[in-house]
Amino acid sequence: MTDFEKQIAFILELDRIKNVMRQTYLSDGRRKENDAEHSWHLALMAFVLADYASEPVDVLKSMKMVLLHDVIEIDAGDTYAYDAEGNKSKRERELKAADRIFGMLPKAQAREYRGLWDEFEAMETPEAKYANMLDKVQPLLLNDASGGRSWEEHGVKKSQVLARNARTHEGSEELWAYALALIEKNVREGHLKDA
Amino acid sequence: MTDFEKQIAFILELDRIKNVMRQTYLSDGRRKENDAEHSWHLALMAFVLADYASEPVDVLKSMKMVLLHDVIEIDAGDTYAYDAEGNKSKRERELKAADRIFGMLPKAQAREYRGLWDEFEAMETPEAKYANMLDKVQPLLLNDASGGRSWEEHGVKKSQVLARNARTHEGSEELWAYALALIEKNVREGHLKDA
Repeated sequence: MTDFEKQIAFILELDRIKNVMRQTYLSDGRRKENDAEHSWHLALMAFVLADYASEPVDVLKSMKMVLLHDVIEIDAGDTYAYDAEGNKSKRERELKAADRIFGMLPKAQAREYRGLWDEFEAMETPEAKYANMLDKVQPLLLNDASGGRSWEEHGVKKSQVLARNARTHEGSEELWAYALALIEKNVREGHLKDA
Repeated sequence: MTDFEKQIAFILELDRIKNVMRQTYLSDGRRKENDAEHSWHLALMAFVLADYASEPVDVLKSMKMVLLHDVIEIDAGDTYAYDAEGNKSKRERELKAADRIFGMLPKAQAREYRGLWDEFEAMETPEAKYANMLDKVQPLLLNDASGGRSWEEHGVKKSQVLARNARTHEGSEELWAYALALIEKNVREGHLKDA
């Protein structure tokens, strides 16, 4: 295969991400969203909200990160945030998926994108902290807009949401403050358990 | 409203693009795709295929363009490429939508994004030619992968596809050559009418 053919095959393979469903409902509450829709939303947020990043970020790099961060779920599936069992085997399944999926590309590109995914996962650089913050705040926005439907269905506790978001503030203090206020509002409204 | 509140409102309003359906089927042919999924795919292609752009492009700018190019369809709806009647009123409906939707943002941002949308539509700059090429080639890839299902359902002719793609080559000669070969293949296979 030529480099071009490998790139086209990668682009077509990634079409499958449109069928990986998440647990978050769209803001109108009518159906759950999928990974492609979620990633589109994060990329949009990445440039609209760039001024609120805790440290200066390379916006292009953070956008590539969020557009690619879930492609490993084509093989590994979406593991619900509060699924304790599923999260035990998550890392292993995702590493295997990353090898296969990024491995479809020409070498230099495979290395770059795998590097972006590893960087996102390690959450150490400004872009990775910013991208991870977006990945956490976007479902909070949708959960609030849809009346906490997903939280209610899974009986989620406030303490679980806070534990999951322990490092979200590192990406943006402003956005975390806003998200925290939404969490408190949803506890008051009974959509999140006060425990 | 503060600037921040306007930006969050814009981000939540754009969630509605996930419910704007297109006529193109996913590569597996099981269902049609929506504008958010389509835009995610274009943004991915924008950086994966940047080396094939006819002229050097600002990749970040082209990605913002494709992520935003269809948001006007939240109000204006998706007009099928080969719907002659719908295309007559398309421009007017889309301009009105652009005023409302980009107008939700703080002034400087509203001006920037509206400018990107106008630039995409005018198709004069390297980024706009590249982004328009992606917007045309992506559905060709999916139509081919799904066995020409959408073309067959609408009885589309090769001449219609060629007319619609008269300027696609301006964005990338390599990608247009590849797309043209797919079109010819689909004529041979009977998915596109040879007329």
